Parts: sequence; structure tokens; C-alpha cells
Amino acid sequence: MTMPVTAAEREGTLGIICGGGSLPFAVADAVARRGRPVVLFALRGWADPRAVERYPHHFIELGQYGRFRRLAIEAGCREFVMIGKVLRPALRQIRFDWPTIRHLPGILAMFRGGDGHLLSTLGRMFEAEGFRLLGAHEVAPEILMPQGALGRRMPSDRDRADIARGIALLAATGPFDIGQAVVVAQNHVLAVEAAEGTDQLLERIAQLRSEGRIRAPLGTGVLVKAPKSGQDRRLDLPSIGPPTVAGAARAGLAGIAVVAGAAVIAEADQVAAAADEAGLFVIGIPPEASAA
Amino acid sequence: MTMPVTAAEREGTLGIICGGGSLPFAVADAVARRGRPVVLFALRGWADPRAVERYPHHFIELGQYGRFRRLAIEAGCREFVMIGKVLRPALRQIRFDWPTIRHLPGILAMFRGGDGHLLSTLGRMFEAEGFRLLGAHEVAPEILMPQGALGRRMPSDRDRADIARGIALLAATGPFDIGQAVVVAQNHVLAVEAAEGTDQLLERIAQLRSEGRIRAPLGTGVLVKAPKSGQDRRLDLPSIGPPTVAGAARAGLAGIAVVAGAAVIAEADQVAAAADEAGLFVIGIPPEASAA
Repeated sequence: MTMPVTAAEREGTLGIICGGGSLPFAVADAVARRGRPVVLFALRGWADPRAVERYPHHFIELGQYGRFRRLAIEAGCREFVMIGKVLRPALRQIRFDWPTIRHLPGILAMFRGGDGHLLSTLGRMFEAEGFRLLGAHEVAPEILMPQGALGRRMPSDRDRADIARGIALLAATGPFDIGQAVVVAQNHVLAVEAAEGTDQLLERIAQLRSEGRIRAPLGTGVLVKAPKSGQDRRLDLPSIGPPTVAGAARAGLAGIAVVAGAAVIAEADQVAAAADEAGLFVIGIPPEASAA
Repeated sequence: MTMPVTAAEREGTLGIICGGGSLPFAVADAVARRGRPVVLFALRGWADPRAVERYPHHFIELGQYGRFRRLAIEAGCREFVMIGKVLRPALRQIRFDWPTIRHLPGILAMFRGGDGHLLSTLGRMFEAEGFRLLGAHEVAPEILMPQGALGRRMPSDRDRADIARGIALLAATGPFDIGQAVVVAQNHVLAVEAAEGTDQLLERIAQLRSEGRIRAPLGTGVLVKAPKSGQDRRLDLPSIGPPTVAGAARAGLAGIAVVAGAAVIAEADQVAAAADEAGLFVIGIPPEASAA
């Protein structure tokens, strides 16, 4: 593969606004491998402070938009990626700086909708400043979930039927700007994600199992993840990583199905190893399959 | 109101198969007030053993269908209502008697779908025996949620918008045979019920609030309950009672909205009192509003 160094240099330094988890660094590594310089804007309290040390970086706080803008201009960044876990904060927990307060009406409106609404408003505000927001998948396509199995195991016919039902349900709930994950076992929908997030969704299944309230036997059921319809993929791609595999194993599931290309995968090798170890499948399903 | 005593007597004794909670006794009282004799078949482990003493009754176990049929025939019952809470048991927890085992293929198939599927198969099996299954709302319409507010408080315009969004989401998820409840706060869907049940759904909201993960302020958000589309209302009506109000209060919600006539309400007076005490509204919304 040739490195598009000249194009990368022309595009200038890429700013990566980093939340939690390992994804921001997977993106930074991939972009750096292409020869494009990066600078990390690490969200304090979310980004791993050790891992950011490997790159030029600044720590920023939620609500300190003025400081962020100044640092971004100094670093010569015009293009940005936002990636990593940031749980939606309570508005009262954010200390706003003055340039941020100028944007308060937009920010307050933002806090009234679902996560998709919040993020798309944020993206629009950002672009009104002359910055450009890119999706992680645009600058580092190799972090996207590939099609096919990541480990050795494959879904059974029963699992495939559960996957199809999960995809159909996610298509129905997509317009409501809710979670991007469901668990289906033997045609029975066990859980639908909303504000709680995927990790807690899996924990709930484990809990219901321990109480004898799930009659599907251990080793059946699939966690299905797909992007919401109409979602701005630059802002909120679903993701899976080793903790997702561990959670699915504790929930007694058969495996995990993710729409290929529509989700990012943190540490694919470790995901495959963890899945093999736990006897789970992790599969990227063709996007066509999720269009129905 | 005239008591249709003659019709009631012609219909014979009504068998009430009782799960947990106070609803079975509200139904028994209402039917008895109409002059129709009742006999209770109390599911051991679920039905309140004290409360059944007020009526002719038998204790039965899940899986003891043969015993149930013999007792029902002896009591002269041809018509039945099934009502009250029974969490779906794990198949291995049920001890089947011989006449039940004759039905095992149907029972096993039943355990493979969602709750709606399970219950409609059970209903069909039952009718194949010459028994007739009625809805609680057919024999005791006064236990249905009425239209309008039960207590003093009314939903605000903001609450009404949340109710509309919840109803629309439940219409979208209805075909998937999942739960009948969602929580919406300030247009944001916080939780969708599946296998966990409404009480646990409310507990989850309370937990997310205590973790600062819900940005809608205390006193906003609505629990919305509606029947699933295509649901056999003889078998699985949603219900609310005083514990639902207590759970909604702990979850910091503004109130509860239930499609009128499509849900049963246990102890309406106590629900109204509990709602007033907690400062919540409890409202029956017109079924037309839920048709969209």
C-alpha cells in the first residue's frame, strides 16, 4: 500500500478529540501510519492519560470550547475526528468557559434530544466555526468491523435467525434515536438498549439468567449491533472491543453480530482471541442484510 | 346498573386461574358482584394464599394440567380467565404430570417464542380441550384503566409530547413481541422494556439517575404502557398498580400514561392516592391516540 504522504501533508495536522477506551489510539496509529501528523485533544476524565503521552496532545475539559478552539488554531488543525466513550454528562456537571457560553442556546437545545440529536447539533456548531469534522472510518478505514467471522466460531442457523430478528427490530427503533443494540435468543427479544449502554445491557441479561428468568439455554442468543438509521456516522459509530466479548460471555450468549463497516472494532486481534477462548462467535454481517 | 344474574347463571361458574398480585381478586370481586359464581385456581408460588381463602379455590402447580382439568370439570367450569403475575418459568423448573406430557410438543414449541407467542399457544391448547378462555376485561370491565387522570395531577405539554413519542415507539416495537413499556423524558427514550418487566425497568432508571447518567431533571419523564399490536388481550393485558407508582416515583418521573381500556388497574383508589402523595400524574389516554 502506498502512503498518500503528499495528500496527508496538504490536509495538515488531524486533531483527534479523544474519549475513553482504546479506539482513539487505534485511529491515531492508523492515521500516523499514513504519514499524516496528529494532535490529540484528550477529554479529561475520559481519555486514558497514559496512552495520550505517545502523541502530541492537550488535555481539555467538556465545556472548555474556547480553550479547545485556541489550541486547535495554534496547532494548525482544520480537520477533526471525535472518537471514544463519553457518557452524556449532566449539564450542571459541566463548567463552561466564556466562548462556550456564547453557544449556550445551541448547547441547551442539544441537551433536549437523544444522543444522535446532541451529536449532530455539536457537529453543526463545530462546522460553523470553519472546522471540518470527519468520521474515524474516513481517516482510518481499517478500524471498521470487517465482513465475516473474527475468530474460529460461526453462527448456527438458529443464531442467524436471531440475528435477522435483531436487525429487523433495530431498523424499527432506529428513527427513535435510541440504542444500537438488542439481544435476541431463540427468536425472543431479551433486551433493547436505550440510555444504559451495551455493557449494562449485557449485565442485565446475565442477571436475568442468574434469576432463572430467561428460558433460552446457556450458549444461545446473540448481541446484535447496527447503526441507527439516519445517524451521522462521523459522530457516533457503534463499537465493540474485548469488554463486549467478556460481557456477552457472562450473559451466556452464543455470539455477537455487528453490521460490517458500520461499527468500529477496538483491538480486533484481542477480540478474536477472547471470542475463541470463550467459545463465542463475533461476526461482521453484510450491510445489505441490515437494509430490510 | 342491573345485574345480569340469569345470564351469569346460565354461563355457569367462572374459573379464575390466579397468578400473583391483587388483580385476580379484583376480578373475582367484580364477577361475584354480578352474581356469577367463581372458583379460583391459585397457582402455587404466585397467587396470594391468604386472599384466595375468601373464595372457593384449589391450589394448582404449573405443569399440573391434568389435575387442573379434573378439578375444573368437577367444579362445572367451562369458562376461564387467567390473570395475575407469573414470570415465565424455566422449563426445567416445572414438574409435569402425565396429561400435561401428552401436550409436551405444543408446550416445548411455546417456550421457543416470545411471551405473546407462549400465551397464544397456551390459549389455543386450552380451547382444544373444550374450555373457553375469556379476557378479564370481558367479565369485569370495571378493572380496565379509565380515560383521564386517576389522581389530581395532569401531564404538562412537555409530558404529553413524551407520551406521544412513547406511544409511537411502542407501535414500532409491537410486532416484535417484546415489552409493553417505555420511558421517555424530554423527547429522549431512556428505557425500553423486554424480558426484564416494568418494575425492573423503573429500577434501572432510578439507578442511571443516581449515577448522573440521565440529564433530564428529576420530575421529568413518563412511563408509557400500551398493549402490543396483535396481542391476544385475553391473555396478556398490561397492568399497573401501587408498586408501579412507587417505582415511577423512585425513577424521578413526572408520571405514568396508560392506554385507556387496554390495561387493567389494580386498586385504582390506592393508585390515585399514591400518585397524589408522590406528586405524579397517572393518566388513561384515549386509544385513538395510540393508533398512530
